[in-house]
Amino acid sequence: MEKSIIEVISRPEKKDWKPLLTRPRFNSFKMENKVFNILEQVKTRGNAAVRDFSLEFDKVFLEDCRVTKEEFDEAEKLLGEQAKKSIVTAIKNIERFHRNQIVHEKPIETSPGVKCWQKSVPIQKVGLYIPGGTAPLFSTLLMLGIPAVIVGCERIVVCTPPNIDGKVHPAILYSAKIIGLDKVFKIGGVQAIAAMAYGTETVPAVYKIFGPGNQYVTTAKQLVSREGIAIDMPAGPSEVAVVADETCVPAFVASDLLSQAEHGTDSQVMLITTKEEVVQPILDQLQIQLNSLPRKEIAEKSLQNSKIIIVNSVTEAVDMINEYAPEHLILAIKDAAQFANLVTNAGSVFIGNYSPESAGDYASGTNHTLPTNGYARIYGGVNLDSFLKKVTFQEISEYGLFNIGHAVMEMAAIEDLEGHKRAVKLRLDSINEK
Amino acid sequence: MEKSIIEVISRPEKKDWKPLLTRPRFNSFKMENKVFNILEQVKTRGNAAVRDFSLEFDKVFLEDCRVTKEEFDEAEKLLGEQAKKSIVTAIKNIERFHRNQIVHEKPIETSPGVKCWQKSVPIQKVGLYIPGGTAPLFSTLLMLGIPAVIVGCERIVVCTPPNIDGKVHPAILYSAKIIGLDKVFKIGGVQAIAAMAYGTETVPAVYKIFGPGNQYVTTAKQLVSREGIAIDMPAGPSEVAVVADETCVPAFVASDLLSQAEHGTDSQVMLITTKEEVVQPILDQLQIQLNSLPRKEIAEKSLQNSKIIIVNSVTEAVDMINEYAPEHLILAIKDAAQFANLVTNAGSVFIGNYSPESAGDYASGTNHTLPTNGYARIYGGVNLDSFLKKVTFQEISEYGLFNIGHAVMEMAAIEDLEGHKRAVKLRLDSINEK
Repeated sequence: MEKSIIEVISRPEKKDWKPLLTRPRFNSFKMENKVFNILEQVKTRGNAAVRDFSLEFDKVFLEDCRVTKEEFDEAEKLLGEQAKKSIVTAIKNIERFHRNQIVHEKPIETSPGVKCWQKSVPIQKVGLYIPGGTAPLFSTLLMLGIPAVIVGCERIVVCTPPNIDGKVHPAILYSAKIIGLDKVFKIGGVQAIAAMAYGTETVPAVYKIFGPGNQYVTTAKQLVSREGIAIDMPAGPSEVAVVADETCVPAFVASDLLSQAEHGTDSQVMLITTKEEVVQPILDQLQIQLNSLPRKEIAEKSLQNSKIIIVNSVTEAVDMINEYAPEHLILAIKDAAQFANLVTNAGSVFIGNYSPESAGDYASGTNHTLPTNGYARIYGGVNLDSFLKKVTFQEISEYGLFNIGHAVMEMAAIEDLEGHKRAVKLRLDSINEK
Repeated sequence: MEKSIIEVISRPEKKDWKPLLTRPRFNSFKMENKVFNILEQVKTRGNAAVRDFSLEFDKVFLEDCRVTKEEFDEAEKLLGEQAKKSIVTAIKNIERFHRNQIVHEKPIETSPGVKCWQKSVPIQKVGLYIPGGTAPLFSTLLMLGIPAVIVGCERIVVCTPPNIDGKVHPAILYSAKIIGLDKVFKIGGVQAIAAMAYGTETVPAVYKIFGPGNQYVTTAKQLVSREGIAIDMPAGPSEVAVVADETCVPAFVASDLLSQAEHGTDSQVMLITTKEEVVQPILDQLQIQLNSLPRKEIAEKSLQNSKIIIVNSVTEAVDMINEYAPEHLILAIKDAAQFANLVTNAGSVFIGNYSPESAGDYASGTNHTLPTNGYARIYGGVNLDSFLKKVTFQEISEYGLFNIGHAVMEMAAIEDLEGHKRAVKLRLDSINEK
């Protein structure tokens, strides 16, 4: 019997969902020693260690890894007009979507004379890691760089691996240039994370590191996060869930599944359908489209981690999605907007037949740095807030302290913190003496 | 020569600031094995392990650790009227401040036919750890519980250590009851973090754990965060910086420094002043107030970790504060509001002579769960967002895809992701065929 392109499971009972929805678990403990050693070397030896590891892993020796003005200019010349135009379209939409997230916090008087407010303040120093390996992810540079520029981070450092000739893809350099990032360093992998975390003679240190990467990069981010460097979110393989019914277009659904499956052999795609009759047409389309896909081998492997699940009702589909918590969710169903309202756990939701995930990956404006691996239960994707922190302020007048002071003193006394109580009492006494 | 109550440093040069502003570093690696063992035991043995560790560490055996309705009722009877009134005042202000943070996200059309929006969704399951050791921190229960209730987290679990009689302080139980939390478990320390992270037969598992604790609790939170449980923020010893000039009231400043110093021997307080002449009056007040402080010994020790620094100008004071990034910042200076505008790195800022830190600790409305240990450079304190995640949505019409589709295809092609390109191409072709 021929092996199926993807496993199909029909109407599983709810008690059996858990194993169906479990992702292959990645164990970062295994590679920790190796990664830790690279981090330590860069921490103590700086540029020299970065050069050594670039030679070892990227097979390239660079005396100076900072991208020069000449290289930016050359990239601009090399990149085609159509590409540039597309990048500008994407930037415009990404910028609009993220600017729309700006919040104007207003002070509130919680009690008369007690004025309190929050203020959003940019994180001063951020680092963006842009993988270059199998694909030059200039789209990720846009997704991370644009919100950092909007909020006004003072220092934005970019690291991206060079190719074997010591070059970076022109689309990455052009994107950096046009959004205004000039601190771009040709460093990849763990050594890049280390350089941004600790700083070197050339690379300035940052407070928070963003960006995807392979398991080594992910482990490096986890390790530096224990030393006080913030990271965007725990990263895992990319994934999509599609919910389809009889209103879907099987060719579209298949193309969406494949566009996720081609990312990497560890990607996972899930199709959940309330209508059994759509399964065969989608399977047929999957096979046809797969045959001509350049990344066929990758997609084929990731389809083996993947599933088509037939459920009994729309309610079950909603429950299953919220339990799975997909990074991307495509709704190719009747009343998709209504379904979307019931979704609590997902990174980014694509509503209707003309909202493919690719649109959000590149140019609709939403961010494509999203929680994988079930983290959508807890985290949202990267947004403007990821580059901000909120500082709280309060300004209390004498009258204000008079209003709340007794509550403060009483509560401090119960917590056995007499010093806290006295800080109020001294002030109330001074008011009374006036 | 008598040892000074606190070190005074006059006009240090900027190049020498770093060691002055460095906190004593806490190394969580040291206690990891011990903590890891407790986590593993609770993970595999559930309630039985929790009972064992409660007996070992809290010297109490509890067959059932869930707080009963009778215990809540008893707490309400035991607590004095003044205390209840104070708690109600605090709740009202905390609720007002946090409700004011609700954001109504509006969809935006990034290109014609491309509608994108964010939606704030509560994290379904959260756990709150409320220490009970030297002080019953019912104020922390309010600070964590109120925003969780406002956003509508479905499951809110509270763990707090019992005393030697197996009881919890009535102020904690009353606070829980009045804000509507009924899942309170008498478990402390690492075993509490483990119970909430993994769940036991009695304690339901959660997705995100909040709350302060000692170094063991902090290490436990760090370790479970590597297994996919989110935590509020890395916690360290509490700290305050006061900026004072000739307009300050030395007795107030001293009381603020002591109210922080009494927290624990590892607390740190810093006084930064532009006016040398205020130092002696503040030192005198420190000595006077310290002598009668119940927690004198604790405060005395933490003053030894602390410093008074005289600087040359207000500008230098601003720079020093932003470099130190204090958890709490009190501004007892002329033009305090103007100074506050220049603060980029601080957890919570208290403006003017009548805004003591105690007010924010208990009842002004702002949250007292704040970034310590310099983390204010990267994180804000707990706020409404800490209990929410943002899900993004997009709904693209045929016309919308027509508008952005070519940009998506071009970009996907550059990234060598043909499948991504096809997901759009198939759709554009189908539109053209119509």
